[in-house]
Amino acid sequence: MMQTPLILSTFITRAERFFPNKMVISRTGEQCIQRFTYREWAKRTRKLSNALTQLGMKHGTKVGTFAWNHHRHLEAYFAVPCTGAILHMINIRLSPEHIMYIINHAEDEILLVDAEFFPHLEKMAPMLKSVKHFVIMGDSKDIPETTLENVHSYEALLESASDEYDYPQDLDENTPAGLCYTSATTGLPKGVIYTHRGLVLQSYALGLSDAMGVCERDIAMSVVPMFHVNAWGIPFAGVFYGTTQVLPGPGFNPAVLLDLIESEKVTITAGVPTIWLAVLKELEQSPRDISSLRGIVCGGSASPKGLIRTFEEKYKVPFIVGYGMTETSPLVSLSVLTSSMDNLTTDERIDRRALQGLVMPGLDIRVVNENGEVPWDGETMGELTVRGPWIASEYYKDERTEEAFKDGWLYTGDIAVMTEDGYLKLTDRTKDLIKSGGEWISSVDLENALMSHDDVYEAAVIAVPHEKWMERPLACVVLNENVAEDDAKVQELKDSLKVQFASWWIPDEILFVKEIPKTSVGKFLKAALRDQLKEHYTKK
Amino acid sequence: MMQTPLILSTFITRAERFFPNKMVISRTGEQCIQRFTYREWAKRTRKLSNALTQLGMKHGTKVGTFAWNHHRHLEAYFAVPCTGAILHMINIRLSPEHIMYIINHAEDEILLVDAEFFPHLEKMAPMLKSVKHFVIMGDSKDIPETTLENVHSYEALLESASDEYDYPQDLDENTPAGLCYTSATTGLPKGVIYTHRGLVLQSYALGLSDAMGVCERDIAMSVVPMFHVNAWGIPFAGVFYGTTQVLPGPGFNPAVLLDLIESEKVTITAGVPTIWLAVLKELEQSPRDISSLRGIVCGGSASPKGLIRTFEEKYKVPFIVGYGMTETSPLVSLSVLTSSMDNLTTDERIDRRALQGLVMPGLDIRVVNENGEVPWDGETMGELTVRGPWIASEYYKDERTEEAFKDGWLYTGDIAVMTEDGYLKLTDRTKDLIKSGGEWISSVDLENALMSHDDVYEAAVIAVPHEKWMERPLACVVLNENVAEDDAKVQELKDSLKVQFASWWIPDEILFVKEIPKTSVGKFLKAALRDQLKEHYTKK
Repeated sequence: MMQTPLILSTFITRAERFFPNKMVISRTGEQCIQRFTYREWAKRTRKLSNALTQLGMKHGTKVGTFAWNHHRHLEAYFAVPCTGAILHMINIRLSPEHIMYIINHAEDEILLVDAEFFPHLEKMAPMLKSVKHFVIMGDSKDIPETTLENVHSYEALLESASDEYDYPQDLDENTPAGLCYTSATTGLPKGVIYTHRGLVLQSYALGLSDAMGVCERDIAMSVVPMFHVNAWGIPFAGVFYGTTQVLPGPGFNPAVLLDLIESEKVTITAGVPTIWLAVLKELEQSPRDISSLRGIVCGGSASPKGLIRTFEEKYKVPFIVGYGMTETSPLVSLSVLTSSMDNLTTDERIDRRALQGLVMPGLDIRVVNENGEVPWDGETMGELTVRGPWIASEYYKDERTEEAFKDGWLYTGDIAVMTEDGYLKLTDRTKDLIKSGGEWISSVDLENALMSHDDVYEAAVIAVPHEKWMERPLACVVLNENVAEDDAKVQELKDSLKVQFASWWIPDEILFVKEIPKTSVGKFLKAALRDQLKEHYTKK
Repeated sequence: MMQTPLILSTFITRAERFFPNKMVISRTGEQCIQRFTYREWAKRTRKLSNALTQLGMKHGTKVGTFAWNHHRHLEAYFAVPCTGAILHMINIRLSPEHIMYIINHAEDEILLVDAEFFPHLEKMAPMLKSVKHFVIMGDSKDIPETTLENVHSYEALLESASDEYDYPQDLDENTPAGLCYTSATTGLPKGVIYTHRGLVLQSYALGLSDAMGVCERDIAMSVVPMFHVNAWGIPFAGVFYGTTQVLPGPGFNPAVLLDLIESEKVTITAGVPTIWLAVLKELEQSPRDISSLRGIVCGGSASPKGLIRTFEEKYKVPFIVGYGMTETSPLVSLSVLTSSMDNLTTDERIDRRALQGLVMPGLDIRVVNENGEVPWDGETMGELTVRGPWIASEYYKDERTEEAFKDGWLYTGDIAVMTEDGYLKLTDRTKDLIKSGGEWISSVDLENALMSHDDVYEAAVIAVPHEKWMERPLACVVLNENVAEDDAKVQELKDSLKVQFASWWIPDEILFVKEIPKTSVGKFLKAALRDQLKEHYTKK
C-alpha cells in the first residue's frame, strides 16, 4: 500500500477541491454574520500560513490562539498544523496565572488573539518569555493602541500574503499538530499534544454512522469552544467531509444559538449540559423552529434526564451524550442506540441516552479495580482506562505523566461501570467518589437522580468527612425558579432517592444553593464545594 | 498520542467484546443455513489460528483460500492475518493455468479449499510447488478420498484446537494481511498486497455516513465473492462495526439471494450489475419483500440506468454505484448524492446514481491527459489516477509495476471525466476507448445509452479497425426475450443514440448477439469481442 500519511492538509485539499461552494458561516459579533465558501476559506488559510511563516513560524513552532469560535480560528486550526507547526488552543477562561504558565510552558512564539482579549494578554506580556508576535483577530485592520512592539493585524497580514502555499505532503503523520492544556482540579494545567494521525483518525470516527455521522449534508454548529480540546474534533471533521460549519462567535447566549439553529438550519451541534439547559429554558420561553436538528451532542459532565427527555420527546431531537477528555482528543464514546435497544420503553431509552454509551471503533477500554477488569454487570465500579490511536501517551513535558499513563493505558480518573451489553456508564471521578464505611457511593448517580426531579435545576453531591463512616454524601441542590426551599422539599427529594438507591446511599443532608460553582469549561467544581463544606458533618 | 497500530485483530476483539450476540449467518448449501454469534465465530477464528499455526503457519506465511462466501471463509479472513500471516484469496473462476500460476507465485503453503473444489485443485497438486497442506472446508469432518498426503478436515482441526490465541497487539500496521490477484485482460494475473493499515482505513471509510455507512444496525449481505478484492471490504467492516453478516454460500442464484434478503431482513448488499439484473428479473417474476434494504451497492462495471431506476423508483431502494479495482482495496468512490443534488429531477438523480460518484475521504484523484490534470467540465477525458493509504504501491514481485505506478500515483487504466461538482464518471478503459479519426469515443457512454433502452438486456461497444477512421465503434447487443432482432430494431436503437451523441459517435453497425462474453468476475470481456470482430469493417 502507498505510505500516504494521515495529515490534516489532505482535509483542506479535499474541501477546496470537492466542496468549494460549501460554507463556513461565522458570527463575528452582534448582528454580524460573515459567510465564506470553502474555496475562499482555504485561500485565506493558505494566506495565513504564508503570513505566519513570514513572522517566523517554522516546523515545530508553537502558535497560540486566544479566541472564540469563528472563521479565523478555523483558519488557524489548519494554517498552523498543515505547515508542520503546532496550534496551541489557549483556554480563555483560565486564570491569568495559568494562562501565563501554559504560554511559557508551551513556548508559544506567536499568539493569535481576538481583539477583545488583547488588553487581557497585553498586561501579561512582560511575563510571556517566548512570545515574539501578537496577531490581532478582528474584522478591522486597525491595531489597538499599545506599547508593545510586534503587534499585527490579522486581516492586514492576510491582505498582503500570497494565497498559494504548498503544504508538505510528506509530513510525518506523527508530527504534533495541536496542543491543549487541561485544567487540573489541583496544580498547574497539564498539556496534551495532538498529532496529525490522531486527529485524522478521530475525524474518521466522527463521520461514522455509528458515531456522530458528520457528513457533507450536515450543517454543524460547534458550541463547544474551539479553545477546548479541538472543539471535540468537529471543526476538523467538518472540513474533511465538506460539512457546512456554523461558528457562533463571541459572547453568544442561548437566544443567539437558537436563532442560528433556526436561520442556518443547523443539523447537528455539540456542547456541555449547562449550555443545553440554558438553551432549553430560552426555547420554552421563546419558541424557535429547531426541526432541522438531527442531533444534539452533549458531554463534559452528566446530562440531566429531564433535559434529554424534553429534547427527545417534545422536540423530537436525538440527544446524544458523549464522553471524552483532553487526553483523548476527546471522542471516546457516544450514547448511540444499538439495535439491541430497539424495543426499549421511552423511559429505558432516555436512561440509555444519559449514559456515556458505545466506545468508538478503534479504541479499547478496560474498567479496572484492584482485581483487574471488572465484570460487565452494570454494577461493579472501577477506574476507566482507555487505549487507542487518538489517546495521549503523555503530558507534555510534565512529571505527572506517570500518574496517568501506565502499561500502555490512560488511567482516566473516572469511575465507571459497564452494562452487560457493553455500554459505558460513568459513575464518578475518582476524586469525587464517596467512600462511606468501606463502600463506594457514586455522586454522579445521585446527582442524576436529583436532576431528573421536576423541581431541580442542578445538583452536586459531594463527600464530606464523617466521624463514623469516614465520608458521607451531602447534596447541594439548585431548585427551579419559584420552587420553595423548605423542609418538605428536602423530604420529597430524599423520598425520591429512596425508591432508587440503598438507604446508605441517601445523602444525610440536602442543602439548597443558588448555584453550583463550575470550572472554566462548565464542569461542576466539586473540589470547591468539598473545601467549603468539609466540616459540615463534623462541626455539629 | 499512543502508537496503537491499525491492525485487524482489534476488529475481532471489538466484535467479541461489544457485539458478542450479533450474528454471522452462513448458507453452506441448499436449505442449509448456519448461525453463529460473533462470540462463537471469534472462538472458531482463534481455533483456526491455532490449527494453522500447528500446520506451520508463521509470520508472513501465505495461506490460500479457494472458497465461496461462508462463515469459514470469514474465519480465515481474520484467523490468518491477525497472526501476522497473509491471506491469499484465490479467484475460483480463473483458468487452471492461472490458478497454478498464482499459487506458485504467491508461494502459498496452506490451502483452505471448499470440499466441492478439492477435486479441481487435487489435479493441479503435482504442479503446486509450495503447498504443504490442504484443509477441506465443509460441514462434514470427513476427508475426501485422495492420494495426496497432508489433507485435513477444517472442522476436525478446529475441534482439537484451543480457542485461545493472543493475537500480537504490537504487529506493525504495515504488515501484509491479504493478497489478491487481478485477472489482467492479457498476460498472467498480477498480485496486490493489502496491509493491515490499508484494510483498517478502508473499513473506516466504509462506515462513513458519506459512504456506505456500514453500521451496527446493518444486516449486510456480501454477494461480491470473498475471493475477489476482500469482497469489497464489507466482511472486515462488518466485524469492526458489529454488523450482522449474511454470507450466501455456494452456488447461489437470484432466488436464493432474494429469499435471504426477505428472510434475514438484509439492509445492505453489494455485487456486480450482472447479479442485480438477474435478481431484478427474478423479483419481477416472483415478488419478495425487499423493503428492509436501505441500499444496494453496485460496481465492477457500468450499471444500466433502467436497473437503477427500477430499484430506486419501483422498489424504493437506493442503488449506489461504486468504483474500485483490485489495486485500490477496492473502495475509491460511491454515487452518494451530495446536498447539491437535492433539487434534481428523478431523471437527473438516476443519471447521477449511474456515475462513479464521490471519491472517498482519505483518497485523492487526478484525471490526467498529456496536458496534466483535465478541467472538471464533465467533458474532457483523461486517465484516472488515484493515491491514498489503501491504494497499492506495486504489483507483488512483478515487473509490470512500473507501467501502473508512477510518481506516487496509481494509473488505473480507466478513462474518466470529472463533473463540475466533483463527481467521478468513468467513460472507458484505456484499452476499450475508441479512437476514431483522432477523436475519442467512449464505449461505456454508448453502452449505457443502449442499455437504458427498454428492449436491451446488455450491450457492449467495441473499437473495430477501420480503413478511413482507424477505428470505428461497433455495438453488440443482447435484446430482452421476445424482442425481434430485425432491421427496424437496429434503426430504432441508432435513432435513440442520435438524440444523445454527436453523429460520429454512432456505431456503424449494431449486431444482435445471444450473450456478451464476460471475465471471471462478471465484467465484459471486450478483448474477446474485439478479437472476434477485428475484421468486421475491413473484410467487406
